[in-house]
Amino acid sequence: MPNPDNPFLTLAAPQIAGLTPYVPGKPLSELEREHGIREAVKLASNENPLGCGEAAQAAYRDCASELARYPDGGAFALRGAIAEHHGVDPAQVTVGNGSNDVLDLVARTFLQPGVESVFSEHAFAVYPIATQAVGAAARVAPARDFGHDLDAMAALVGERTRVVWIANPNNPTGTWLAAGPLRAFLEGLPAHVVAVVDEAYFEYVAEPDYPDASRWLADFPNLIVTRTFAKVHGLAALRVGYGLSHPAVAELLNRVRHPFNVNAPAQAAAVAALGDRAHVQRSVEHNRAELARVSAGLQALGLDAIPSVCNFVTVDLGRPAGPVDQALLREGVICRAVGNYGLPNHLRISIGLADENDRLLAALDKVLAP
Amino acid sequence: MPNPDNPFLTLAAPQIAGLTPYVPGKPLSELEREHGIREAVKLASNENPLGCGEAAQAAYRDCASELARYPDGGAFALRGAIAEHHGVDPAQVTVGNGSNDVLDLVARTFLQPGVESVFSEHAFAVYPIATQAVGAAARVAPARDFGHDLDAMAALVGERTRVVWIANPNNPTGTWLAAGPLRAFLEGLPAHVVAVVDEAYFEYVAEPDYPDASRWLADFPNLIVTRTFAKVHGLAALRVGYGLSHPAVAELLNRVRHPFNVNAPAQAAAVAALGDRAHVQRSVEHNRAELARVSAGLQALGLDAIPSVCNFVTVDLGRPAGPVDQALLREGVICRAVGNYGLPNHLRISIGLADENDRLLAALDKVLAP
Repeated sequence: MPNPDNPFLTLAAPQIAGLTPYVPGKPLSELEREHGIREAVKLASNENPLGCGEAAQAAYRDCASELARYPDGGAFALRGAIAEHHGVDPAQVTVGNGSNDVLDLVARTFLQPGVESVFSEHAFAVYPIATQAVGAAARVAPARDFGHDLDAMAALVGERTRVVWIANPNNPTGTWLAAGPLRAFLEGLPAHVVAVVDEAYFEYVAEPDYPDASRWLADFPNLIVTRTFAKVHGLAALRVGYGLSHPAVAELLNRVRHPFNVNAPAQAAAVAALGDRAHVQRSVEHNRAELARVSAGLQALGLDAIPSVCNFVTVDLGRPAGPVDQALLREGVICRAVGNYGLPNHLRISIGLADENDRLLAALDKVLAP
Repeated sequence: MPNPDNPFLTLAAPQIAGLTPYVPGKPLSELEREHGIREAVKLASNENPLGCGEAAQAAYRDCASELARYPDGGAFALRGAIAEHHGVDPAQVTVGNGSNDVLDLVARTFLQPGVESVFSEHAFAVYPIATQAVGAAARVAPARDFGHDLDAMAALVGERTRVVWIANPNNPTGTWLAAGPLRAFLEGLPAHVVAVVDEAYFEYVAEPDYPDASRWLADFPNLIVTRTFAKVHGLAALRVGYGLSHPAVAELLNRVRHPFNVNAPAQAAAVAALGDRAHVQRSVEHNRAELARVSAGLQALGLDAIPSVCNFVTVDLGRPAGPVDQALLREGVICRAVGNYGLPNHLRISIGLADENDRLLAALDKVLAP
């Protein structure tokens, strides 16, 4: 945790004083060590329980003999594969060390002290952190039914706004925005505002009204769409994400980007993953079936879950979630209490393998028993 | 190359207009494709020609089954191994996606518009880029014999200075600073200045007066020492570096650091590499023998090389190096012209395997022939 009395704060840029870093979930091995548990199941980080596909794993293994060589700083093959996948030009692609890196590049390029970014209550934690890290101000719109209230967000956009962050769907609530309202919102934005539509969970969403914002790039020069390989592609270990935008926006983001920000096996595995549609399909189908089963199980336990289109479900426990989270941990089931998202009674549960989900439901039943 | 007429510059933070990204060497495959050459040798990026050690490669392979899991955001094992290696506390360690990332964290933490950083002419290109990326001003001290002139650097330190960057040894000149003068320089720095001693090439240096600045951390609370796994450890593909500092300085750097900045196989391979002293020894011995041989070969060609303690040598061609670099490329030998470092007549040559070095010397003889 940040130390408010750190003696070096007087030398640091002023925004560092208010900067609280993102607290990631701990790795399984560390939790098992800390809590003296074994064979725990981790449903805390929205990872793909099926792992990555065989093609990506093979591409990863093939890099083993070339570890002494720098990555391709221009990410030629990866940008080409992404461009082909989306039907855009490679000059529209900005690769990132996870999509977190792309979000940070946007903040470093377009935000500074004296300007503002706008995002929703309960939205992904990196938006406020990236904003604060460059000394810009955050304007937070109240949520509606746990999701983005686009009218409330539009009302916060003003002369000082430079970036609007939109998670579609949103983590940690699992809520989503339909094409019509989102497009109308983008059309209403003034020309001095860059809109980021973060589609980290894109592939999981089946709703017919759910838009692929990457198809709107030609209509909105100020639009940046971000994607990740950490979710459905099962490559969270390798850190690869990307942004799609107007080439001139990408040119600015790439000025700030470190040339070797995506390492060599990450580039290679991501190219392979993008071509492995069967693995994506398998992962999506597994998630759909298990998300329905877990949601039904939560309902059977009398719990109220936020309807989710993602690979996780966030549930209202009707009491502070922290102690329940700790009790689950002692049962060997690792979830994520999301009090830091302004949801103190909610627990986020990632969808795992069937037997992992069974363990979660049984453990939750046990720890919630009076 | 940055476009000065980019229409989105009016929306960007002002420093983005002056930001020219680092231009990395192209990967071998891309150069071979571009120039229609085959079996080229790459002596352009100061990589370890022996590759990484077996232990690091095994650790890399072991990660293949866990690619869907996020890395350890706290880098518990890696920070522990680094701390043990240096005899410091893990709270003094900041891990980076390459040491470039650590340098950038220093800039983002301690620099901002209105303050300055100081570095030497011909010093590593990331110092001006990291300074510019956050809108701070760069004060560049003239070099002495191609190396850092510490008196000239001290003369540029003033009220507005927050960071001094010192490369020891320096890339691309291969020059180094002895313990006595460097320590005296650090002692003379005012308390409002953070000193970064970048030791990316540390292991290659055998000179008895060459200091290990990490041993001075207890004496200089404002000192940050950086190291990398990209050089002697042969892990350039994976991007791992680190900073060592006072724990309070590390606490600030870690506020800005992305939690998953070093990916999972990079963490695992780096831990293994740090324990493989035999591979370091082998790599250093190979470099010593071949550096001497290449230096003698250059002298035999009548060329004046800057004396180097690194795994590269930078040589004065007595004419613009760009065309010679291109001619070498057509011979299948890839080096680096360093005009962007203010050395338009110099060529930087990485030390390769014996037969690669033979090819370099023969190709250079050929292309320099009248």
